[in-house]
This record gives sequence, structure tokens and C-alpha cells, in this order.
Amino acid sequence: MRRKVYVEGSRPDLRVPFSEVPLSDGNEPVRLYDTSGPGSDPSVGLPPLRAPWRGTHGTQLAAARAGVITAEMEFAAIREGVEPAVVRDEIAAGRAVLPANHHHPESEPMVIGSRFLVKVNANIGTSAVTSSVDEEVEKMTWATRWGADTVMDLSTGPRIHETREAIIRNSPVPIGTVPLYQALEKVKGDPSRLSWEVFRETVLEQAAQGVDYMTIHAGVLLPYVPLTAARVTGIVSRGGSIMAAWCLAHHQENFLYTNFDELCRIFAKYDITFSLGDGLRPGSIADANDEAQFAELRTLGELTHRAWEHDVQVMVEGPGHVPMHKIKENVDLQVELCGGAPFYTLGPLTTDIAPAYDHITSAIGAAMIGMFGTAMLCYVTPKEHLGLPDRDDVKAGMIAYKIAAHAADLAKGHAAAQAWDDALSKARFEFRWEDQFELALDPATARAYHDETLPAAPAKTAHFCSMCGPKFCSMKISHEIRERGMRDKSDEFRATGSKVYVPLSSS
Amino acid sequence: MRRKVYVEGSRPDLRVPFSEVPLSDGNEPVRLYDTSGPGSDPSVGLPPLRAPWRGTHGTQLAAARAGVITAEMEFAAIREGVEPAVVRDEIAAGRAVLPANHHHPESEPMVIGSRFLVKVNANIGTSAVTSSVDEEVEKMTWATRWGADTVMDLSTGPRIHETREAIIRNSPVPIGTVPLYQALEKVKGDPSRLSWEVFRETVLEQAAQGVDYMTIHAGVLLPYVPLTAARVTGIVSRGGSIMAAWCLAHHQENFLYTNFDELCRIFAKYDITFSLGDGLRPGSIADANDEAQFAELRTLGELTHRAWEHDVQVMVEGPGHVPMHKIKENVDLQVELCGGAPFYTLGPLTTDIAPAYDHITSAIGAAMIGMFGTAMLCYVTPKEHLGLPDRDDVKAGMIAYKIAAHAADLAKGHAAAQAWDDALSKARFEFRWEDQFELALDPATARAYHDETLPAAPAKTAHFCSMCGPKFCSMKISHEIRERGMRDKSDEFRATGSKVYVPLSSS
Repeated sequence: MRRKVYVEGSRPDLRVPFSEVPLSDGNEPVRLYDTSGPGSDPSVGLPPLRAPWRGTHGTQLAAARAGVITAEMEFAAIREGVEPAVVRDEIAAGRAVLPANHHHPESEPMVIGSRFLVKVNANIGTSAVTSSVDEEVEKMTWATRWGADTVMDLSTGPRIHETREAIIRNSPVPIGTVPLYQALEKVKGDPSRLSWEVFRETVLEQAAQGVDYMTIHAGVLLPYVPLTAARVTGIVSRGGSIMAAWCLAHHQENFLYTNFDELCRIFAKYDITFSLGDGLRPGSIADANDEAQFAELRTLGELTHRAWEHDVQVMVEGPGHVPMHKIKENVDLQVELCGGAPFYTLGPLTTDIAPAYDHITSAIGAAMIGMFGTAMLCYVTPKEHLGLPDRDDVKAGMIAYKIAAHAADLAKGHAAAQAWDDALSKARFEFRWEDQFELALDPATARAYHDETLPAAPAKTAHFCSMCGPKFCSMKISHEIRERGMRDKSDEFRATGSKVYVPLSSS
Repeated sequence: MRRKVYVEGSRPDLRVPFSEVPLSDGNEPVRLYDTSGPGSDPSVGLPPLRAPWRGTHGTQLAAARAGVITAEMEFAAIREGVEPAVVRDEIAAGRAVLPANHHHPESEPMVIGSRFLVKVNANIGTSAVTSSVDEEVEKMTWATRWGADTVMDLSTGPRIHETREAIIRNSPVPIGTVPLYQALEKVKGDPSRLSWEVFRETVLEQAAQGVDYMTIHAGVLLPYVPLTAARVTGIVSRGGSIMAAWCLAHHQENFLYTNFDELCRIFAKYDITFSLGDGLRPGSIADANDEAQFAELRTLGELTHRAWEHDVQVMVEGPGHVPMHKIKENVDLQVELCGGAPFYTLGPLTTDIAPAYDHITSAIGAAMIGMFGTAMLCYVTPKEHLGLPDRDDVKAGMIAYKIAAHAADLAKGHAAAQAWDDALSKARFEFRWEDQFELALDPATARAYHDETLPAAPAKTAHFCSMCGPKFCSMKISHEIRERGMRDKSDEFRATGSKVYVPLSSS
């Protein structure tokens, strides 16, 4: 069974968790990145891990620029298996963020950037139609158990403050929000009644609670709205549509854009990280990479540089629905316009035709965009477009996205990622079934599937499986070949030189 | 509800099936490619659709090279929405195959090639450990209902002849096999007792039954076997391991390679299509694109050209387990070495760490390799590496692979593929929920997920869903914006010219 182990850093209260998988037959145990946290009693909350570290009241970006390696950076570096200076330097350059609101000391520091492991965000949250506080805390815990690196609370119904408070106090990972949703609740759901004052008050409320990053739709500018008129699916971002409605109702420029500097000052005080929202992202294959989308991205590039002037950390959100051949352009343009700030994308979905399976349509796009350099993937669950995800959907979404992120890590040549695959494949080839299950992303399900056809305990050490049966097991034959081949090879060498192994065909 | 419609070709008995989705509100119905066949009573079998067309006893390749457009080519062209001459020319050039054994008149002609829609194959079949004849016929029917373009019967247990007969007589799609499996049964499972004679007899038996394409592991040459010795997972192809064992046991070259011309003559007689097996494909990320794999591919290139000399159609099989950044090299090399013969790949799986979810790990690779030009994708089910797929696994594998194939079609710019996405997205934007469900790859599941949170019938016409609730529905707001925006726009134009819509920011 997997067990939690800790690696101590430069101070005794800096203990970095890993999930260790012990293996049989003398194989070295494998250590996996662990996001599950120490476990909490929801009525108490998690212990404030980072409270004693508070050497600075500024931002991680300010510290990094000053050459300081914070305890948070060291913690994240140990998780990633890199030198702390690498984390510091990537943050200083704006190519990575370490979302850590001073008021959320319960979270275990992690770093998001193209130089590091690809991260996965899970969205949860109540809506007016469904869900409760307890359910959402449970979903957050469940998501981190399956590897969520951050969680966004997108609650929109009643008890929005209370839900968020419960999530933050129990979360071992950074929490993101879209403050606009709560602001809209405060004005009874009428976008035209929104104002900078209501929004600012909402941000301050959430900042004090400890929200680590906030999606801000400051790039939805008034002149861009008409660019969406001819689209197949118009504006599909909730925040984007709300701000577009406000802009048109008032014939004024987006108040998030015009008050951006004041927002930066608030974010700097708490070290909240910007997640610059892509309110005009495409909601269908037909609308991908259009003028509206890229006009907004240019503005997000401008805002990225503006936030950096305030020492505020920035991520930039990305699409959406994009066919495979148009994915790379998104990353290339984002890197260019946003100076390498971490890209944080929703999917993208590579086709519109499979509602109920959009965790798969989008895992394809997510893996690709991760390979091209996206730093964090926002998961999509099977319920996308159809309803709110339940517990099973959260798991299905997380599994699909951990696969996508890991496939991207492999494609980027990450050594620890490759070691995990190698350990599992070696276990598979050596018929160490239990090791193979324990190394799997979802050990219980892998074991259960094997049990379905060969439930007996001896089958767990058998040198074949039910797929092919004993006679047709390629791996079994392959072992015999290896033994025979090696023996024959030495016989041959003794008898005739290596003649048998000289290629017979020139093709 | 979807309904089957037929498009008549140049003769009254040439009726090409489509699945038509009627839409509401005056929207044009959408016609989808249909593989489900006319439906059969398993005790009777399907009617012999192609029996009256038998103008030629040669191969489709021979006909195409002679400039002839066969009824089969016309049928396939109507399905693809292209001119029959395009199908003929692609077959003549070897870039496409139309697998259609003269003895399998029940199958509906289809074409496999990079110029056409990306196809999906479903593997089924009994093993010594599990499964029955009826179950396998049921799985075949189930697979074609979910869009399988071809089905491979990989049975290895007892009643292998009977199982295959039942599958072929009921199958509306081409059937593929690996004759080596039955040959091995005939010699009691001992690879060293195999011989060309036993194999030839098996091929003739299966040819007479109507197998449309056969996997032949003729590229596993004796000198390549030692190249697998240092691999993490050795040889993972059943056929590959069997032939490698034979080669080593006899110290002789692969009898499939040395008797390839005779095999071509048999295949030409029935118009069986080669599926040149990749017996040395990688079984782990670590082994991808290695010397053993590419040495075999070079030999498959040689054999492709040899088969073409006999007017025999050829596909070439591909990996396996390949990390994303190494996928394209596989396609490029295959196209170069095999003269553009259709590539037919298993996945590839883009990571090894997710047994129980390999339909997803491999759908990522399948979509990408499809975009790069692979003509047919062999599905992988959640049971891969763990057991034989049951009915649910067959569906899960098919859905994941139809998504991958369709995403590839979109990326290749296929107009009919794009029209499907557009129709669904338009329905989504216009809150035509029933249209959206009917256009979905899996209508029942999409509808069921929507029902879970908003089961009442009025919700099926509501201008919001349970994800966001009425106030936060971006599409609802987007419609309001569109109406308001258009009205405002004309007001603006009248009052002040287009000033409001001049970009405010130069960034």
C-alpha cells in the first residue's frame, strides 16, 4: 500500500509530503507528488502549516526579484525535485507563480510554470439550482485526493461566503475564485447594477478569507464585444458575458480594466495571484482562434506587464474549444504577448460532438497544450455542458486530466515522470501484478478490473492474464525468448561467430 | 430520434445507409456516417448485399489500377461524400484499401486511407479463460452500433472456427483476424511446432469463411529479435512473440517472410487485405521508436511493395506505447517506407501509468496520430492490460476512439466533420436541448446526465442549465447582448458614428 512520507527541508517545520509506493522483489520504492494534504476534520480545519514562515509580508514575486528564496519556494522546489534557486528564478522572471495568500496558511506551497510539472485545477462549487456546503468541502477533499493541484470554488448560489470559508480552511491546495460571481449575487443577478465599488468590496472580503488566486475578466473590452456577434456560440464564459453585458448597458469601458491598478495594489497586499480570465474564449470549434479571442489575449498581455509592475503574480487563462491543429497557435501567441506568464487553460475540447464525454474530448487537447507549454490545465468533467459535477464526475475529470498532465510531462522529458512509467512497465513485464496496481493512477480500479476475470489470489502472481490466457501471453513468451535468446546467442558465438545475428535483409 | 436513410447510387441495389438526425425549429437534418448495418437475426445472418455486384473476381486494387470503378468503390464514395473516382485513384495509388473478401458479401463497403474519414477498429474475441460465441457476436453488433468501421476477431480459445463464422455472417463491417492464433491452437500452443504448412492451411480456412483482412507478422525477422533484449517490456505483440519464439527455436528466418509471395497469391484470389503486423511494437514509453521497432517497419515497407506487385491491398500496423513528442516520427517514417499505404495504429498510449483508463491514455495518442495521417485507429478499452473487454468496455473504447477519430477529421479540415460540430454547437447556443442530445455521440447518456439535475420536461427547453443556473448562464446573457448589442449598435451608428466600437487600447 502507498504511504505518506516527508522530506525535510532547511528547517524542521518544512516537511514536504510524498506518496511512496513500496515495491516487491527488491525494487526501489517510487515516490509520487502528493496533493492530498494531511487530512482534516472539517469542523476544525487544517493546521496553519505556513504560519511560522511568514518572513515577508510582500509577494513571492517581490521576494524572488530581491533574490530571496522563501520557505514556500523551497517547499515547492523539493516537491518538484529541483534546486530552490530554479523556483526563485522562474518566479522572478514571471514564468512561474506560487499562489499563496498570506491568509491561507493551511495550503502546501506549489509552483505553476512551464518549467515544472504540469498542474491540474479542479472546479467545484454550488449553484442556485443544486449542492450544499458539506458536499463542496467533500468534493474539494476528493479532488485533492485524486491529484488536484489547485481547486476553484465557483459557487454562485446562496451561502457563497460560508461555502468558501469551509473550503479554504480545509484545503491543502491553493484556492481560486471568480469574485464577479459573488458580486453579481450582491446586486441580485443584474449585471447592469454591478459597479467597481461592489466588486472591490467583494475582492477584499475574499482576500481576507485567504483566496490564493482570482479570475479577473479585465480583458473583455467594450470594443471587443461586437466581435462576438457573428460567432456560432457567442460568449460562453460566465464572467465574460457578465462584463460584456455591463459594458453595453453602461456604454463604458470594463471597470476591471479601468481600475486594474487599484486591483493590483489589493492583490499585492495579500499576495493574491491574478488569473486573467479569457472572457471571450471560444465555446465551439467554429469560433476557435478568432478575432475576439485574440483581441482579448493582447489586452491580457498588456495587463500581465502592468501587474508585474506591482510585483503581483500572474497567470493567464486560455480556451476553451479548439481543434487540434489550432492549439499550438494559442500557446505561441500567449507566450509572446504575455511574456512567458504561466498559461492556464480549460481543456481545450477538440470537438463539440460528445457531451457526456468532454473529459475525454478535452483531455486530448489538454495533453497537447500541456506539451506545448501550458503550465496548468483546468479539468473538464463528464457533466460539462449538462449539469454540475458530482463526486464521480470529479474523479473522472481528475483522472483524465492527471493522464493529460503526465503525458505532457513525459513529452517534455521530465525525468521523474519517465521513472514512474518505467517502474510500472517493469512491474508489468515481470508479472508483479500488485506492484503494477499500486503504481497505477487508480490502484483500486485497476485491481478490480483484473479481479473481474481472474479473481483468485494466485492470478495476482500468474505469468499471464485473462486477456490472452497462458498460451498467448506475449510477455511470458518474451521472457522465454530472452532466456533462450541469450543462451542461444552465446552458443552461436562459440560455434560460428555472430553469424545468425547478421541482418538477412538489406531493406 | 435518429432514423436510417438510404442514398441510392447508380444501380437500385446500391443503397448507402446514413443515420439522419432531424432537428427542430426549421434546422436542416444532419446526416451521419452509419456503420450499424441493417440488423440481423444471428440464427440467419445478414443478407448478402454485395452478391449481385460481383463483376470481378480480382482485387479492388487490380480494378482500380485498370481504371475501373467497382460498385464497392461507389458505395464507399457515397459514404465519404466524395466522387467515386477519388476512391478509385487512392486505391490505385496504394494510399487506400477497401477490404472486401469475395466470401463476405454481407459487409457494407468502406474505404480506409488518409484522404478519407479516420476509421476505428474494435477488437473482440474469446480467450482460453473466458467468453462464448454468442457473447462475441453480441459484442461485434454492439461495436458497430457505436461506430466500429471494422472488427477484429482475436479469438484464441476453443470453438475458434465457429466463433469466427458467426461473427462474419452477422457483420456489416469488414472482419480482420490474426490467423497465427488459430494456427498456434492447431499445434497445441507450442510455437516451435508451427510451420508454413499449418499456417497456410489456416489462412485458406479463414479466407474461405470471408475474413476481409489478416494481420501477418512477416516483419519479425530473426536478426531483429535480439534488438528487443534490452527493452523494458520486450516483445508485447502476441503474434510477434510467437514468431520470434519460432525463429529462435528453429534458427531460421520467419516463415511468413520467406513464403510471402505465396501468401500474396492466396490473398489476391479472395481479395484479402494485408494488415502487416508490427510484432515488435513498443509496449512501454521507454521502448518507443527504438531500433527493433523501426527495423521491422523497414521490412514492412519492403513487403508492402511486394504485395502491391501481386495487386494485393495493404495496410501497415503501428504502435503501441509512444510519448506524444515521438508520435509524428512514426507516421512520417511509415509514409516514407511504405509508400503511403494506410497506417493502422493501436492507440498509441501516451503513458503507461493508467491501467483501467487506457482508452483515455491512448485516445490522446490516437487523435494526434490520426491528425498526422493515420487512416485507421485500433481502439483500446479500459480493460487493456487487465482482462478481456466486456460490453461496457467495448462501448467505452468505441466512444473514446470515435472522439479521437472525429477530432482528427476536424484537424484535417473535413467539411462533413465540421458541419456536425457546428450543428451541435448551434443547437447548444439556441437552447435546443433535444437537438443537442440527438446530435451527441451518445444521446442517451447526454440526456441522462442532464436529467440528473434538471429532470423536468420544461428544463429541456429552458434557457439555462443546472451548471450555472438561470442568472449565470453565459449563453443566455450572450443572447441578450446580441440583441442589445445590435440595437445599441444601430443607435450608436445613427447618433455618433461607430465611435464606441473603435478599439480603446492599442495593445
